[in-house]
Amino acid sequence: MTASPVTAPARSVPPARYDIDAVLRDIGDVPVITDPQSVRRRSRDYFWYSPVLNAQLHGKSADIIAVPRDEADVMRVAAACWKHRVPLTARGAGTGNYGQAVPLEGGVLLDLTDLTAVEWQKPGVVRCGAGLKMNDLDAATRPNGFELRMHPSTKRTATIGGFVAGGSGGVGSVTYGGLREPGNILAARVVTLEEKPRAIELRADAAQKVNRAYGTTGIITALEMPLGTAWPWIDVIVTFDDFVDAMNFGYEIALADGITKKLITPMIWPIPQHFTALRKQCPEGKHVVFCMIAEPSLESFKAILGRRGTITFEQAHDDSAGHEPLYEYTWNHTTLQWLKQDRTITYLQCLFPHDRVIASVVEMWKLFPDEVLPHTEFIRFGGKMTCSALPIVRYTTTERLNEIIALHEQHGVMIANPHVYTLEDGSRHKRADADQLGFKHDVDPRGLLNPGKMRTFVSKA
Amino acid sequence: MTASPVTAPARSVPPARYDIDAVLRDIGDVPVITDPQSVRRRSRDYFWYSPVLNAQLHGKSADIIAVPRDEADVMRVAAACWKHRVPLTARGAGTGNYGQAVPLEGGVLLDLTDLTAVEWQKPGVVRCGAGLKMNDLDAATRPNGFELRMHPSTKRTATIGGFVAGGSGGVGSVTYGGLREPGNILAARVVTLEEKPRAIELRADAAQKVNRAYGTTGIITALEMPLGTAWPWIDVIVTFDDFVDAMNFGYEIALADGITKKLITPMIWPIPQHFTALRKQCPEGKHVVFCMIAEPSLESFKAILGRRGTITFEQAHDDSAGHEPLYEYTWNHTTLQWLKQDRTITYLQCLFPHDRVIASVVEMWKLFPDEVLPHTEFIRFGGKMTCSALPIVRYTTTERLNEIIALHEQHGVMIANPHVYTLEDGSRHKRADADQLGFKHDVDPRGLLNPGKMRTFVSKA
Repeated sequence: MTASPVTAPARSVPPARYDIDAVLRDIGDVPVITDPQSVRRRSRDYFWYSPVLNAQLHGKSADIIAVPRDEADVMRVAAACWKHRVPLTARGAGTGNYGQAVPLEGGVLLDLTDLTAVEWQKPGVVRCGAGLKMNDLDAATRPNGFELRMHPSTKRTATIGGFVAGGSGGVGSVTYGGLREPGNILAARVVTLEEKPRAIELRADAAQKVNRAYGTTGIITALEMPLGTAWPWIDVIVTFDDFVDAMNFGYEIALADGITKKLITPMIWPIPQHFTALRKQCPEGKHVVFCMIAEPSLESFKAILGRRGTITFEQAHDDSAGHEPLYEYTWNHTTLQWLKQDRTITYLQCLFPHDRVIASVVEMWKLFPDEVLPHTEFIRFGGKMTCSALPIVRYTTTERLNEIIALHEQHGVMIANPHVYTLEDGSRHKRADADQLGFKHDVDPRGLLNPGKMRTFVSKA
Repeated sequence: MTASPVTAPARSVPPARYDIDAVLRDIGDVPVITDPQSVRRRSRDYFWYSPVLNAQLHGKSADIIAVPRDEADVMRVAAACWKHRVPLTARGAGTGNYGQAVPLEGGVLLDLTDLTAVEWQKPGVVRCGAGLKMNDLDAATRPNGFELRMHPSTKRTATIGGFVAGGSGGVGSVTYGGLREPGNILAARVVTLEEKPRAIELRADAAQKVNRAYGTTGIITALEMPLGTAWPWIDVIVTFDDFVDAMNFGYEIALADGITKKLITPMIWPIPQHFTALRKQCPEGKHVVFCMIAEPSLESFKAILGRRGTITFEQAHDDSAGHEPLYEYTWNHTTLQWLKQDRTITYLQCLFPHDRVIASVVEMWKLFPDEVLPHTEFIRFGGKMTCSALPIVRYTTTERLNEIIALHEQHGVMIANPHVYTLEDGSRHKRADADQLGFKHDVDPRGLLNPGKMRTFVSKA
């Protein structure tokens, strides 16, 4: 018995036969990709980080890809899919890790990467197309002194719509919490999948209906996002002899509200051994904390550090082309850096209790010595500072993986299981968000949007 | 027996006789004020909020006031005071409430309000003279998109040096915590009181040696302060039928890291009854929450509010001349608004335990119904969201006041007693900061800086 079973294999429906030709006729001049090899390649995401998902999602593919130029195109594709009962799976850059963008039942893959317009900006707010890459978004807002509050480690390739649909948080969540916190998504515009598709504006808390819904609750075409100050960030690596010292230092910086920061990532040795380009900055046997600190706070940061650890890297942050920002060694890029050299490992996603953060991290570390290697990320959650983690797991079997998950949960560590592809199984509470489930009946009555991902949805249409 | 005795009357030393003429000769052309009436008037601050301090500090006065034009002038005055063993009490605008700037033993009052130079600015940092008024400081930095992270409710008249020397926090502490948090004072330059006064640069954590030291640990001549983003703030009043609803709403906004805010101030009726200019916005019998919310977060703020309360006031924040900002009804201005009409009340300063904020506020309210009226201020403290409070106290006797203080402390509410004038008695832990005490021996060996305020200091010189 495990508390969090890895999901069953994908619904073993025989390959669907859809009237794709009818769809193609109906959508007219909307650009499409039909070459089977391209379609198969672009039907994947980074689910292969998980050996479990890799086995389950291997070979899943759309029938065609549509590449809308604007919202009108999106509506035409939506209407055609409704009419011919063809599944539609929206996709940004496909950098997710849970098979979010993998069409389980074929059909149309809707590639939104051409919806890149910056509609408008004002101080602290931007409104743009869902397919805009986050690096391009920051490039557009930075001249005005602003930038995205948070982004995933895939910022340089991922789209803002994909980030919101995939959900969670990332670099910046140590200050602002995740996308789920009120105020972190100001509005989303979604197209419905109905006979006559509508465009609906979801504002404030209503925008949460699309947050981490994998595109099952409408096709996101535009987003209004709050911005933070575009500080001159400094990428810093600090090394420690003792992992608990590294954790304590990270926590102290996390709690220091006078220190402006965007990233605090403690990682145990031997994780940094796999950071090839940073070999000198990550000496043998040393545990590390990777940070992004606003330049005006750097001196105070160093005062807190004192002689407890050693700064081995300190450089003005730059994530423009030709530069490698430090955040590409954090969040799920940590896992990627190791996977580049060794495909035997995988990872988990943990949330530690805020009232005993360090004790809980240490407890889990001691419970699985050399099997689950701590890589933590300080974040705010519900207004409280705590730690999430994407530890490296030396993978043996699915059963052992489930056992590790269950033991975490038994010790009060919440797990967002990254080895399942449904919304329900991947959530901390193992159920679909009630608002999202209800809203889906309104916007996708036939259940054609990314079918199989919200597994508790049953169409009444 | 009370846990926190109100301090004994000021040291009953007979009026000191100093060689003021010798000081005047030594300081040459440094501007001075010698007219006794002016000197007496400017030797006061707002200690009269406390009936206890009012009795103790009444009549205390310096002998002369020196008004240095620059740091060289400060050094000449310091050298003269050292030579002739004359007390020196530094002063900003004199808006404090604990007699910080009241010279207990006469001597020279050093009026620093002419040290107003903005030395330099860079993104997120300003360096300026200690006597610069905070409103002028913001006026200088706002064109670059920045403003002070926090300020007292006296911002429009008080100086930055006085704020740091008086310590604590204020409007903005809901986001950044108080001045004591690392990173909230970047550096302070102080002049020592020695035979040959030195100017010492205190950087990062060393700058804490002058934070809330009432000018006993050196004369602050310049400060380097971190800045926050100058958001377009909206002043908002929300009214509630139930005080606990008001508290809960304030706490929810306080915990919402996606909502950019500067002020969250719940106040129980009948406190708003005394806000004459806001009578319409504060209807009879309604409890209120006064807020400053960044314009981009206002919609999300309203979504959280829903139908729980009523917005009666919503206006772009403006604290320039001729406008009255909402913060002048919060922090210790709340007390002032009541005192304008009724001198029988006074106040306390509380810090509630972060892990049971609302329960603790309600518990104290129920313990002293109609005697201690809750006026709370959400703040971050040590990285955790909690509540401070400046409740209105219906004053009867000093004994009862001490009893109220003791009962708070017995219930886990920390009190920074505003009815005492020494650093030790006014602190939560009833002792001088060890660093400050040690540092004072270095910079003021004869104990001439604001004598009597750090009462545990004993000169070895």
